[in-house]
Amino acid sequence: MIVVMEPKADEAKIQAVIARLQELGLGVHLSRGVERTIIGAIGEKKDNAIEILEAMDGVEKVVPILAPFKLAGRELQETPSVVEVDGVRFGDREVVLIAGPCAVEGEAQLFETAELVKAAGGSMLRGGAFKPRTSPYAFQGLGREGLKLLAEARRRTGLPVVSEVLDPKDVELVAEYVDMLQIGARNMQNFSLLREVGKTRRPVLLKRGISATVEEWLLAAEYVLREGNRAVVLCERGIRTYEPATRNTLDLSAIPLVKHLSHLPVIVDPSHAAGKWRLVPALAKAAVAAGADGLMIEVHPHPDHALSDGPQSLNPANFRRLVEELRPLAQAVGRALA
Amino acid sequence: MIVVMEPKADEAKIQAVIARLQELGLGVHLSRGVERTIIGAIGEKKDNAIEILEAMDGVEKVVPILAPFKLAGRELQETPSVVEVDGVRFGDREVVLIAGPCAVEGEAQLFETAELVKAAGGSMLRGGAFKPRTSPYAFQGLGREGLKLLAEARRRTGLPVVSEVLDPKDVELVAEYVDMLQIGARNMQNFSLLREVGKTRRPVLLKRGISATVEEWLLAAEYVLREGNRAVVLCERGIRTYEPATRNTLDLSAIPLVKHLSHLPVIVDPSHAAGKWRLVPALAKAAVAAGADGLMIEVHPHPDHALSDGPQSLNPANFRRLVEELRPLAQAVGRALA
Amino acid sequence: MIVVMEPKADEAKIQAVIARLQELGLGVHLSRGVERTIIGAIGEKKDNAIEILEAMDGVEKVVPILAPFKLAGRELQETPSVVEVDGVRFGDREVVLIAGPCAVEGEAQLFETAELVKAAGGSMLRGGAFKPRTSPYAFQGLGREGLKLLAEARRRTGLPVVSEVLDPKDVELVAEYVDMLQIGARNMQNFSLLREVGKTRRPVLLKRGISATVEEWLLAAEYVLREGNRAVVLCERGIRTYEPATRNTLDLSAIPLVKHLSHLPVIVDPSHAAGKWRLVPALAKAAVAAGADGLMIEVHPHPDHALSDGPQSLNPANFRRLVEELRPLAQAVGRALA
Amino acid sequence: MIVVMEPKADEAKIQAVIARLQELGLGVHLSRGVERTIIGAIGEKKDNAIEILEAMDGVEKVVPILAPFKLAGRELQETPSVVEVDGVRFGDREVVLIAGPCAVEGEAQLFETAELVKAAGGSMLRGGAFKPRTSPYAFQGLGREGLKLLAEARRRTGLPVVSEVLDPKDVELVAEYVDMLQIGARNMQNFSLLREVGKTRRPVLLKRGISATVEEWLLAAEYVLREGNRAVVLCERGIRTYEPATRNTLDLSAIPLVKHLSHLPVIVDPSHAAGKWRLVPALAKAAVAAGADGLMIEVHPHPDHALSDGPQSLNPANFRRLVEELRPLAQAVGRALA
Repeated sequence: MIVVMEPKADEAKIQAVIARLQELGLGVHLSRGVERTIIGAIGEKKDNAIEILEAMDGVEKVVPILAPFKLAGRELQETPSVVEVDGVRFGDREVVLIAGPCAVEGEAQLFETAELVKAAGGSMLRGGAFKPRTSPYAFQGLGREGLKLLAEARRRTGLPVVSEVLDPKDVELVAEYVDMLQIGARNMQNFSLLREVGKTRRPVLLKRGISATVEEWLLAAEYVLREGNRAVVLCERGIRTYEPATRNTLDLSAIPLVKHLSHLPVIVDPSHAAGKWRLVPALAKAAVAAGADGLMIEVHPHPDHALSDGPQSLNPANFRRLVEELRPLAQAVGRALA
Repeated sequence: MIVVMEPKADEAKIQAVIARLQELGLGVHLSRGVERTIIGAIGEKKDNAIEILEAMDGVEKVVPILAPFKLAGRELQETPSVVEVDGVRFGDREVVLIAGPCAVEGEAQLFETAELVKAAGGSMLRGGAFKPRTSPYAFQGLGREGLKLLAEARRRTGLPVVSEVLDPKDVELVAEYVDMLQIGARNMQNFSLLREVGKTRRPVLLKRGISATVEEWLLAAEYVLREGNRAVVLCERGIRTYEPATRNTLDLSAIPLVKHLSHLPVIVDPSHAAGKWRLVPALAKAAVAAGADGLMIEVHPHPDHALSDGPQSLNPANFRRLVEELRPLAQAVGRALA
Repeated sequence: MIVVMEPKADEAKIQAVIARLQELGLGVHLSRGVERTIIGAIGEKKDNAIEILEAMDGVEKVVPILAPFKLAGRELQETPSVVEVDGVRFGDREVVLIAGPCAVEGEAQLFETAELVKAAGGSMLRGGAFKPRTSPYAFQGLGREGLKLLAEARRRTGLPVVSEVLDPKDVELVAEYVDMLQIGARNMQNFSLLREVGKTRRPVLLKRGISATVEEWLLAAEYVLREGNRAVVLCERGIRTYEPATRNTLDLSAIPLVKHLSHLPVIVDPSHAAGKWRLVPALAKAAVAAGADGLMIEVHPHPDHALSDGPQSLNPANFRRLVEELRPLAQAVGRALA
Repeated sequence: MIVVMEPKADEAKIQAVIARLQELGLGVHLSRGVERTIIGAIGEKKDNAIEILEAMDGVEKVVPILAPFKLAGRELQETPSVVEVDGVRFGDREVVLIAGPCAVEGEAQLFETAELVKAAGGSMLRGGAFKPRTSPYAFQGLGREGLKLLAEARRRTGLPVVSEVLDPKDVELVAEYVDMLQIGARNMQNFSLLREVGKTRRPVLLKRGISATVEEWLLAAEYVLREGNRAVVLCERGIRTYEPATRNTLDLSAIPLVKHLSHLPVIVDPSHAAGKWRLVPALAKAAVAAGADGLMIEVHPHPDHALSDGPQSLNPANFRRLVEELRPLAQAVGRALA
């Protein structure tokens, strides 16, 4: 951490900062420049030290040096993690394809989609039983009924299942029925929920918040990891920008960035990012080319009857075509479709 | 709702949309333009209808006409709501001043601040017992201990108290100790939590999410209102933008916008928006001039020893000065400081 | 400037950075921390040094310490500048009110508006003769004809006139007819144009770019100042964010920020920020309360016949009402309406 | 265009809107819903009609139906355009690779880079002679000297050359020396400049503005096309968002979007988007997978001595490796590297 003093900070203010650093148990390295005095703090990072120092008189700014995450970072673990979900491996050579409907709507819809995903070559099934909806008047999911259908779909197809959990009190319930717990974008900083899934031994799919920085996202992962659950897979799903032509703006630079900063696997959800099925194939291919460890794609047997996210769901024919297009692409970047 | 067809949508596609609208129980109004066919849907809004139609073949876009919120909107209730918290009235002529530390850190800090707020003319005390922190390594609040201190501070000063609740399971606990439940920006779309506070009879202070639109914010309020709790006060606290010089960008246009769309009172938190105490007075004054029904300001007896948000907290002298500056300003816009 | 080395940067890389700093004529201050080596550069800022160092092997990041602007900053000039335009003083005790139509449309419209502005108490007249329009099919302004009408309006009312210039080759022409040259948001980084207006002795009104940081804005001012024209007034007019309910998001924190970083006067254009006349009065009042040195407001005798920006223009009655509301407000913050 | 009336708009207001539409020569289609009256306007789009109507009393909003661009759109020209630059074809099966330094710095640097680009398989050379720099103190380019060097580099390697033009008065000069005129992000809405390059017969590379919507970008292209120059290639180069870890956020959804809305070719500049060379290869590959018609990549023989943009420039070894990785990828999406 480096403390930059204001141009007019006098000696008393400089000494006060030094004293506070020493109080915090940090070493001090003083550097008097032509126009500014700069004070380096040497030693272990102290919680809150940056805020404390920024509030001091005569301090212009405090520049953090160390990454704020530890377990999620590359410094403690250099080699990439592989997260396994019932035989499906995230972070390995194979690109994992998760697909399914936005929401579980009923037996027919779910089982038809599950068979389709299986037949086309998908590795996992997605489907929401608890749905976070912007409007209280929108379909909120089937709840436990939906979870049971997911478990049954897994039994029929052998595909492991991922589903979102919204409330800390439901974590145990959802973990009972599904193979992987999804934390949605709206809950990326729902810290009670993160801690709760951190206490289970179910792998966690952690979506990036709609306006989260990559650093905040890794700190959210840190909440899970710190509880002892090391099976975290990150999922980029678009961020909020000014552009109205898409639901969100897919930030594919997040993939090489995460790979540089962290050992955790990272996948991409092009469906929520685009918000329009027409854009999904191009973005899915781009994600694989950029090095994503997997894709999560919304598929619906009849998008124009979907109870949610119909406009961004691929129909069966488009989904099958996309999978076929992804195969040579994965190979071209030295990987394979699982 | 208006369905705009693609330029090349043929008659079959147009008829399919009409059939679907009728299926949904909506009236149909067909308009064939020079380049586009447009289909108006007449009748009650149907959940999910927009998504269903957008997913149909030949549909270019669907334009919603009605506001998606009902209880929060002006159409059912024209007159502004006044929300009362133990004698303090939000939405009335007086501008409510809430102040206090970011986090409750201990007896001395809290009681000293409470006396200061009281003496300077504040109407309510704020203080966090449960703190949502980006990093798991940062101070997370004193929990129940903090709530007890808040209750004691109220007993000493007579100031009603507002504090944040993070987890649905803590709602009852927090409601036992404080007068108003705060939903923080990170939880604006934590729908379980919104429903839970909606079930209590404690007034709710609902902060705008860091990247929420005004419409999404009003829909979050709708979640609370719909459970039967009509005492909702909105709080603008800055949105995330590209500008690095401030923590967030305070969006004061939200005040006249909310007043136009909704009957709910709206206050402003300039401290979190700015992230720097130096900017707080200007923004606080701007908020009152823009018509805010109140302010929520972070004050700390010793900002450079604060366990959180020190850099954006006013010290006692600056706080007192601000209050004095706010008085004539409130009068100049036809109001008064409570 | 501080160079933060990567955790694994070896001695050779550290020495290479030191050698490069010395080559650039900078002093070196080496600090070896527990996990990182940090190298401070002491001396005059060298153009491009940050980029050069960031591109070196083993460098994690380079943190600038000094503000990149000089003439616009507070370090060379501590006292606020007052910019005078034909008797109107920006940056002094009085709040300057500029008003007028978005575009000059013709004699009747302009003269009627000018009389209205004058009668209501405005200090300057605005009006576009060259209009930057997103679409090539929209009204592009009357050009030289419009400038002549502006000069005639000034003759009739005595109000100084400000108008936008879009092209370096038109600077001389526009400067011949108007009292203050406006650089619009789209041209904030049109450096040829900035240099050209910098060569005139006409005061310049420099709007903030639609996605410019405050630092970039001050650097744009620096381009003008550096050519010898010290009469620069800044104008905040809203930045682009994700919120669709307003045309832009007015960033009022820019006012105290600019006042902290720079000696230049700063005014606010609430009309372009809001994009809706209904929101303009609240934002205009907020701007004055936040410390703006002036306002620029769009007024039109018949907004629903305006050739541009009708929806955000106040009609005469609303404009007069706003001016009356601004008077006591300006007084409440220790100023007066000019 | 559809005019949505306010819920309480009375008959007089409705009739006024109808009268105005008729005045504008538009047909009228009236639809009285349960809660709103909606008025459709049928006929040719009238400039400014939307603004005029939005400013009318009783109008809640006006929804445009037709795309505002014509020559850039798919409606007048269905088949994709191929833009040829001295034998290099944009928009055809081959993916065009443009590479070179950010700025032309001198003979040695440029010729060395040009040979490298040629040898590695690039199709065109880039290099800035006029540089738009945020700070007036940064290197501004060699101007005419730089153009001469570019022409000489073309003579030596046979690679066509693209270079940026900043000022309308320099268009002729730049067009004399280079094969393709680049309009940079900061000048996307410099309409004088757009018109000027539209008058030449040099192909134009039009970068997306740093906060431009796709629609605004296509309207900027429309300015060029409308002057008679049909050889426009679009270039996505990242947009400004809140994420600090990258210089900009590359918006790859712009590729399928542009392809859907327009017949113009579109390429991608991953270097400016990322701002860090480490992220460039992943984004370059993603762009090709998403369907880009070309790439523009910054290469420098010695990035740590570059006079601008060193941190985002690939060194020769990394550039050669990237080209080799792009070959199989282009094939996997049915294309080839030129």
